[in-house]
Amino acid sequence: MPNRITGILTPNITPVDDAGRVDEERLRGYVDWLIERGVDGLYPNGSTGEFVRFTAEERRLIVQIVIEQTRGRVPVLAGAAEANVKATIDACDAYGAMGARAVAIVAPFYYRLSSEGVYAYFREIADHVSIDVTLYNIPLFASPIDVATVIRLASECPRVIGIKDSSGDLPNMLRMISAIRPIRDDFTFLTGWDASLAPMLIAGADGGTNATSGVVPELTRAIHRSVVAGNIQEAMRLQYQLLPLFDAMISLGEFPEGFRAGARSRGWNLGSGRVPLSEQQRDAVARTQREIDSLVAEVADLDKSLVMPPETIEKIVQRVMRQLGS
Amino acid sequence: MPNRITGILTPNITPVDDAGRVDEERLRGYVDWLIERGVDGLYPNGSTGEFVRFTAEERRLIVQIVIEQTRGRVPVLAGAAEANVKATIDACDAYGAMGARAVAIVAPFYYRLSSEGVYAYFREIADHVSIDVTLYNIPLFASPIDVATVIRLASECPRVIGIKDSSGDLPNMLRMISAIRPIRDDFTFLTGWDASLAPMLIAGADGGTNATSGVVPELTRAIHRSVVAGNIQEAMRLQYQLLPLFDAMISLGEFPEGFRAGARSRGWNLGSGRVPLSEQQRDAVARTQREIDSLVAEVADLDKSLVMPPETIEKIVQRVMRQLGS
Amino acid sequence: MPNRITGILTPNITPVDDAGRVDEERLRGYVDWLIERGVDGLYPNGSTGEFVRFTAEERRLIVQIVIEQTRGRVPVLAGAAEANVKATIDACDAYGAMGARAVAIVAPFYYRLSSEGVYAYFREIADHVSIDVTLYNIPLFASPIDVATVIRLASECPRVIGIKDSSGDLPNMLRMISAIRPIRDDFTFLTGWDASLAPMLIAGADGGTNATSGVVPELTRAIHRSVVAGNIQEAMRLQYQLLPLFDAMISLGEFPEGFRAGARSRGWNLGSGRVPLSEQQRDAVARTQREIDSLVAEVADLDKSLVMPPETIEKIVQRVMRQLGS
Amino acid sequence: MPNRITGILTPNITPVDDAGRVDEERLRGYVDWLIERGVDGLYPNGSTGEFVRFTAEERRLIVQIVIEQTRGRVPVLAGAAEANVKATIDACDAYGAMGARAVAIVAPFYYRLSSEGVYAYFREIADHVSIDVTLYNIPLFASPIDVATVIRLASECPRVIGIKDSSGDLPNMLRMISAIRPIRDDFTFLTGWDASLAPMLIAGADGGTNATSGVVPELTRAIHRSVVAGNIQEAMRLQYQLLPLFDAMISLGEFPEGFRAGARSRGWNLGSGRVPLSEQQRDAVARTQREIDSLVAEVADLDKSLVMPPETIEKIVQRVMRQLGS
Repeated sequence: MPNRITGILTPNITPVDDAGRVDEERLRGYVDWLIERGVDGLYPNGSTGEFVRFTAEERRLIVQIVIEQTRGRVPVLAGAAEANVKATIDACDAYGAMGARAVAIVAPFYYRLSSEGVYAYFREIADHVSIDVTLYNIPLFASPIDVATVIRLASECPRVIGIKDSSGDLPNMLRMISAIRPIRDDFTFLTGWDASLAPMLIAGADGGTNATSGVVPELTRAIHRSVVAGNIQEAMRLQYQLLPLFDAMISLGEFPEGFRAGARSRGWNLGSGRVPLSEQQRDAVARTQREIDSLVAEVADLDKSLVMPPETIEKIVQRVMRQLGS
Repeated sequence: MPNRITGILTPNITPVDDAGRVDEERLRGYVDWLIERGVDGLYPNGSTGEFVRFTAEERRLIVQIVIEQTRGRVPVLAGAAEANVKATIDACDAYGAMGARAVAIVAPFYYRLSSEGVYAYFREIADHVSIDVTLYNIPLFASPIDVATVIRLASECPRVIGIKDSSGDLPNMLRMISAIRPIRDDFTFLTGWDASLAPMLIAGADGGTNATSGVVPELTRAIHRSVVAGNIQEAMRLQYQLLPLFDAMISLGEFPEGFRAGARSRGWNLGSGRVPLSEQQRDAVARTQREIDSLVAEVADLDKSLVMPPETIEKIVQRVMRQLGS
Repeated sequence: MPNRITGILTPNITPVDDAGRVDEERLRGYVDWLIERGVDGLYPNGSTGEFVRFTAEERRLIVQIVIEQTRGRVPVLAGAAEANVKATIDACDAYGAMGARAVAIVAPFYYRLSSEGVYAYFREIADHVSIDVTLYNIPLFASPIDVATVIRLASECPRVIGIKDSSGDLPNMLRMISAIRPIRDDFTFLTGWDASLAPMLIAGADGGTNATSGVVPELTRAIHRSVVAGNIQEAMRLQYQLLPLFDAMISLGEFPEGFRAGARSRGWNLGSGRVPLSEQQRDAVARTQREIDSLVAEVADLDKSLVMPPETIEKIVQRVMRQLGS
Repeated sequence: MPNRITGILTPNITPVDDAGRVDEERLRGYVDWLIERGVDGLYPNGSTGEFVRFTAEERRLIVQIVIEQTRGRVPVLAGAAEANVKATIDACDAYGAMGARAVAIVAPFYYRLSSEGVYAYFREIADHVSIDVTLYNIPLFASPIDVATVIRLASECPRVIGIKDSSGDLPNMLRMISAIRPIRDDFTFLTGWDASLAPMLIAGADGGTNATSGVVPELTRAIHRSVVAGNIQEAMRLQYQLLPLFDAMISLGEFPEGFRAGARSRGWNLGSGRVPLSEQQRDAVARTQREIDSLVAEVADLDKSLVMPPETIEKIVQRVMRQLGS
């Protein structure tokens, strides 16, 4: 796997202080906490990071802080969608200079572009940036990057080195992998749909960028490591644990409010976000906090069982060595 | 109709120069041309103006230029959606200080907010701005503002003085009018869906914000004036003329590329916009220019027949006087 | 208007007795009542008639009863969709022999056919039947018949003499009328979406097949007659009266349960239909009956104002004479 | 797994002769061929069997033939959706008397019922039939049976013994399994979406009812057996083989025309079906036959590698014994 991005990268929530400003100190602490709990990378300015609700200047600040604090311990994938192609290219280059491993760029949103328009957009970027680019497909929020367009860009653009797919469409993941793997062994497939994390990894994805990893990084890590170790039954067992927590968090208030509640269950007060909630919504969040606390606690209990015995670790190491050798 | 915004307001395309910058001189000339051809207002930073593809600074510049150049000849409705509530409120106040008649604010996009979240967003804005606010419903691109939420906001917020609805949903327009008119005689209903312009006006809408009015302002004006004069048959005849031109422009390249082509048919080169097109798309635009030229020319021919004989004008004046008197 | 089907045709509910069988006597009485209140035609085996919930034999019986009872007073448009093309053609011929004016055929449902498949289906039917065919477009329930396919069938098939469109898409109605009227002056355009009845008629539709006409035939008739008389303001005023009643009936229980409730408000107990309701749904129907009674009563009050003074009738007659002369 | 339905059941195409009648002899031969190639059950009158395009009498004949010919070698799951609840219950009882293992009933189609309506429908059936019932969820074609409704029916109705889910929604499969398994160990989960067959089985589904199993029964069987044996890597490898064939067949002409083409690749001429195709569609089918032949041949080559060595079979047997013992 020459140079692929693998494992679980956290699309981190952006902490804000009481005045609604980026809370630098808390962000640095949260980054440390995530790395210590085993995430394989950070992903600032993702959808979970509410990139569209911050200004262009704030977005740069957020990436700067995350890269600095990470200090090379794990790679940083920086979300880099700006108002237009030119501004996006500038941001990409800036993040490259800061030391990001790659950028992730969502297709244009608000307007729904055609496949041709999506292609033209990414082609223009790929032809002009000085950093590796990951396509970010999230058809719920932005223009879809269809399978044919992903294949076209992977074939034509060396700078396009992967896709982060949050569609949750498993057959499309198979279609992309089977078309691109034979021509691009370096191409990275990441899933952003936590509800299908284990099945996507089992099907061949290299990793995930999952909002739940910002709340229970131990669990998402264990899912990934179980699949790598070939322990599919265990991976699915953990996926069954992850799903109700994900369901509770995704449907609470406005996204990503539920994940802020999840972080609170772990002791992290990341502030109140930038989307105003109605009184009814604030009540719902308050009422649901206990339920989320309890779901997180269940996973924390489970957590102890995740400590692997030495023989399992040995087995994993051997398996990975074999794969690398083949 | 105390203080309502009426008639056809043009959501103007933002001209850019060869370097992709806002072309101030051309924008001033275009504003003059539109006012001379009878538009009832300007609407910078609408969807047709590609507001999301400009920076926050550029958006302010665009509104500033349009208001200055308009010199009070017609009201200006300024698009004012920014990255978050705070930035949006700041923009609203700035546009008010510049002399805008009102702002138009699209519901949050990218994320799809729930009805409660949409309500909370507009409530927060309405409680803090110093300028009248028009809700902008465009469910194709942004979180929908459903009928119940419009009624709720109209009931609670004096600052919310109208809705610009681009859903094209005629029964919903009836539902909103019949619920809000009895409690808010000052509330303005505008339609942004050109394909239904005449039917919406006939059904009771006060006016429209229509991209086609940036290409054939004479025709959209004639539709509005025919309805006001009670000449429904004529209004529908003109609507039948408008539709094929609208259809040709809306489906060309990426929106609003087709409307730039339409402007070219009228002699206005407004630049190439900010969305990159693929080679295939550029070819399609070039091929279709002649068809759009010819559709525009047909309407220009029709235009002559739009010169109203004095007795018709007299009839209109009398009718309007009567309505104002009642 | 050579031979077009015009005015309001009632897609009548199919009355059933306590054992769930077609209630012939009540159906005959209901047909008489509708004709006496001024409907321009009957339309058995429509969606409101729950055609899919009856057997092929029952469907024939229903058409037979309606045609017999109508005794030529108004034309009958018979719904004729069967399990497959062959069975559909047989039903068409049978209904022709019974004396139906035309049949209405919905596109294949369950499977969503492509445009080509929809074309092939209707082409096969049109080439083999001995009765006029009306296309029935209801994309909510069945494969859509898109505008291009309607135009294609209108151009190629003399037997296809109209479309009953229940999409509610007003611009598509304009598109069809402007493409087909010049080549087929005999082609009938009917709307099945009551929420847009007046706007559709104003836009050029010849009539409607509207479930509400089975409850308040006086009101739907008045809407149609107002448009024919050029009294657009009155037509829209009545449309505003129709909409809340339609909204209340369409959303109650499972369709067409709300229309059964509406018929009860007029004194017609048409039985309980063939779709089982949950306890919660039955409660909702019971609770809402009074609201529907009251909405129907309002329209009945309005009804008195619908009695036209002789001079209005004279005006209508003159207008129609002029149109026929032109 | 007390009494669950497991493995791959074939929703068989219904062969028709040149006159369009059910081709009994060919159906018998096809049933034998499928059983000999290892399918675990037959499923007449499924969507692939075009149940809606046959009459009620034909549907009974089809089930009768399949059950007779099967002679108890594998269980038969009979599709039993009729025009209304009463007719459906009658068909269920008839199929039970014929010897069907269970029936599969799609939610009402044409009209989209609410969750309450879907619940009431199945509850009515479950309370009155004398045979086990499998819910059939296919939201693309029929009213969706949402997760909460499946759980409600599983909790209340002993006669409801499983769900055949063709939504392809993997997280929903997890949600159903985790809610129902603890209370109903006898409940069967089948997937009808071939593009996700292996992932669904890995996630815990008991089997599948897959149209591709009517074309390459060896391959779908091998996928199922690999998962049962814990050979996940092999199952996914085969899934990658299945997908392009499925994609080619699902998108050809009108469903299930592509699967008829697939059957032809295996030497089975099952007739031309009951849906008329346009000339353009017939050409496309003819042109694509060779591509499908070649995709089927690839799988046939693969087939040889599917012959399992004795030690693998031994391993499978042991694993299953262990599971049964636990």
